[in-house]
Amino acid sequence: MKGIKGFLIDLDGVMYTGDRPVQGAETAIRFLEESGCSYRFVSNTTRKSRGTIAGQLARMGLDVPERFIFTPPLAAVAYMKQAGRDRCWFLITGDADRDFGPACRPSSVDFVVIGDAGEKITYESMNTAFRYVMGGAGIIALEKDRYWMAASGLSLSAGPFVAALEYATGTTAVIVGKPSPEFFRLALNDMGIGPHEAAMIGDDIVTDIAGAQATGMRGVLVRTGKFREESLRSSPVRPSAVIGSIADLPEILGQQAGRRQGTGP
Amino acid sequence: MKGIKGFLIDLDGVMYTGDRPVQGAETAIRFLEESGCSYRFVSNTTRKSRGTIAGQLARMGLDVPERFIFTPPLAAVAYMKQAGRDRCWFLITGDADRDFGPACRPSSVDFVVIGDAGEKITYESMNTAFRYVMGGAGIIALEKDRYWMAASGLSLSAGPFVAALEYATGTTAVIVGKPSPEFFRLALNDMGIGPHEAAMIGDDIVTDIAGAQATGMRGVLVRTGKFREESLRSSPVRPSAVIGSIADLPEILGQQAGRRQGTGP
Repeated sequence: MKGIKGFLIDLDGVMYTGDRPVQGAETAIRFLEESGCSYRFVSNTTRKSRGTIAGQLARMGLDVPERFIFTPPLAAVAYMKQAGRDRCWFLITGDADRDFGPACRPSSVDFVVIGDAGEKITYESMNTAFRYVMGGAGIIALEKDRYWMAASGLSLSAGPFVAALEYATGTTAVIVGKPSPEFFRLALNDMGIGPHEAAMIGDDIVTDIAGAQATGMRGVLVRTGKFREESLRSSPVRPSAVIGSIADLPEILGQQAGRRQGTGP
Repeated sequence: MKGIKGFLIDLDGVMYTGDRPVQGAETAIRFLEESGCSYRFVSNTTRKSRGTIAGQLARMGLDVPERFIFTPPLAAVAYMKQAGRDRCWFLITGDADRDFGPACRPSSVDFVVIGDAGEKITYESMNTAFRYVMGGAGIIALEKDRYWMAASGLSLSAGPFVAALEYATGTTAVIVGKPSPEFFRLALNDMGIGPHEAAMIGDDIVTDIAGAQATGMRGVLVRTGKFREESLRSSPVRPSAVIGSIADLPEILGQQAGRRQGTGP
């Protein structure tokens, strides 16, 4: 793991599981801070602003600066900034709209931003999104998952409604959620480093590891969260490294950190 | 046009335009009755029961027996009957549910039937449809159009929401609306004749003529409704015949009718 200047670190399953931090997670954050490496905590949530996520982490004893949290809504904002057009209308739920700032107004729309919108999905809201796209707006999908397991049972995620808009308009959505290459690219841009200088640390061998490797990054699998030995054994994906948990991050960083502290070779 | 035993006749643009009957339409119906040919009036509407359609035709002075009206909801009913499984749950609007009869209950669902459902589209209704399909139900789409022009502007039709369910479930919908081959096949079954014994009479060179010809039927284009000379000239589709209007139906039927009346050769 030579030449790593920055890390993307999954939150759920890597830094915490359920509502408890993974042992050693807090130490790892401090270690990262001291290492001089760049880092972003990444999450695929599309319902929460990064302020809300930082608050939840703080309640678990994990002190993560808000600006180091990178989610699909933030990726969307970065995407629009690069495109030089940032007037958006969103079909999302929760408080993720707070990450978009005041630039987004319901007129003169450059992009329709669609996430897991739950009850916000109505014929009227879908029709509004449709008309903006027919009027020239692009579609940014915060994710394109098919469904998720809610307390009440399997429930539709954003993907089907993104597919509906694509079918209606003939316009292909830009997907800015993990594991789209766009997500990793935007997160790396946010750190100002290239893919060959970065590693993704995650618990999902497909979304995290294969996704990161496909963009030229290294992929480090942790044995926490949704990790299963069987998935690792049967997968064609070969992680760049496998570690017990985020507590082993210093092992990966050992050389660089040692060098900084004058104890390295 | 030899050997024709039955006709499928489009309603809107062929039998009436706006709220007025096409001149000669009523005579054509009587002529059909006397000819001994089978016939069905076909429409792609998914919001009205055939009773409602018959009532609207009657108010225009067109006396069409209800049982000779064939629409996507009726095609769906015929499809389910053939499949031997007819317990359905529908996501439609208007009174088309009346064509499905009492067999359709919201439990033990064999098919989700989805049409242009307008305001009936909500996250909850889409999720219900999704869960039935994940539980093993098939998807029957009354149409898969992308959008239509409502008074308020372009508006989503059933297609996008069919695409959403297909994306979510990995199940491909059976489309029973015109111009799907399934629609023509079911309408012909309803008359008990084969495609080579039938002609479709319509004003849309693609949906009506090409659609019918693709199933082995003959396609007769009328110069009423949405007919435009330019569309005929520039289209690669070659109608089996082009007539001025439905009033010219006797020309096509001449020989058979003549024979019946003993005046033929």
